[in-house]
Amino acid sequence: MTTNPQVAPVPRTREQRQADTLAMLRSPVRDVWVATASVADDGTAVPYLVPLSLAWLDDRVVLALDATSRTGRNVLATGTARLSLGGTRDVVMIDAVLERSVRVAEAPPELAEGYAAQADWDPRPGGEHDVYLVLHPRRVQAWREVDEIAGRTLMRDGEWL
Amino acid sequence: MTTNPQVAPVPRTREQRQADTLAMLRSPVRDVWVATASVADDGTAVPYLVPLSLAWLDDRVVLALDATSRTGRNVLATGTARLSLGGTRDVVMIDAVLERSVRVAEAPPELAEGYAAQADWDPRPGGEHDVYLVLHPRRVQAWREVDEIAGRTLMRDGEWL
Repeated sequence: MTTNPQVAPVPRTREQRQADTLAMLRSPVRDVWVATASVADDGTAVPYLVPLSLAWLDDRVVLALDATSRTGRNVLATGTARLSLGGTRDVVMIDAVLERSVRVAEAPPELAEGYAAQADWDPRPGGEHDVYLVLHPRRVQAWREVDEIAGRTLMRDGEWL
Repeated sequence: MTTNPQVAPVPRTREQRQADTLAMLRSPVRDVWVATASVADDGTAVPYLVPLSLAWLDDRVVLALDATSRTGRNVLATGTARLSLGGTRDVVMIDAVLERSVRVAEAPPELAEGYAAQADWDPRPGGEHDVYLVLHPRRVQAWREVDEIAGRTLMRDGEWL
């Protein structure tokens, strides 16, 4: 990787990276890459990856999906996901744990309306298997180019640094 | 997801999607999200995800990395990776298997020069653990909006459809 002076003349401070990260998390119609994993019958780890729409509610990442989809099954089985926001040259990585799964049909209004307000769709009324997954970020890292690799960790053990 | 008429007034044909996908794979300074997985000591699957620079050589995705990095270890252990190119609204997903791992210091010139020519860096001369991973795509899918979910599979079992 080389430094692109048009993007980042100097490495951003931690405060700036946190502000940029929160702005991304709060922006409307924001998609996120969701990496999950499973274990095959032969014991091999199997990666999975899809893009999904997110909402950022009460300091949690909220996704809406079919619990029986591959991503849904993986998150419910392992309790973890690794998320990336932004582009490959303006990276935000989030390691998150599943806090709760809420059926769309039974979701409290603040969750359902918060999701619909930020995402570009509303999963309600929702089918039998449709759920909101509420993910608690535990580690957040943000960097653009190689000069920002140092200092990229913004949150550790669920606490902003 | 909603259809964005500015992006795709009609679903692309398979031929167009393949052409767009190959153009992405051949474009200079192309990054890819690389999802891999491992199995924790307690048997839980653990996802991992990083952005890396790719080269597209002889119908293979070539990455260059430290074999002892987490992504390196995961690919070498499982023999698989799931890759995404493009954005969350212009998606190309590639399920690939590891064909071979070549030490940077011992790589044939066509591999090393091909990688350096397309990527934006040259890993040579390379440290003790630096390798090229040559990944063979087995399944490729491409879609933009929801109207392109049908017909998204472009390659199956390593063969373009």
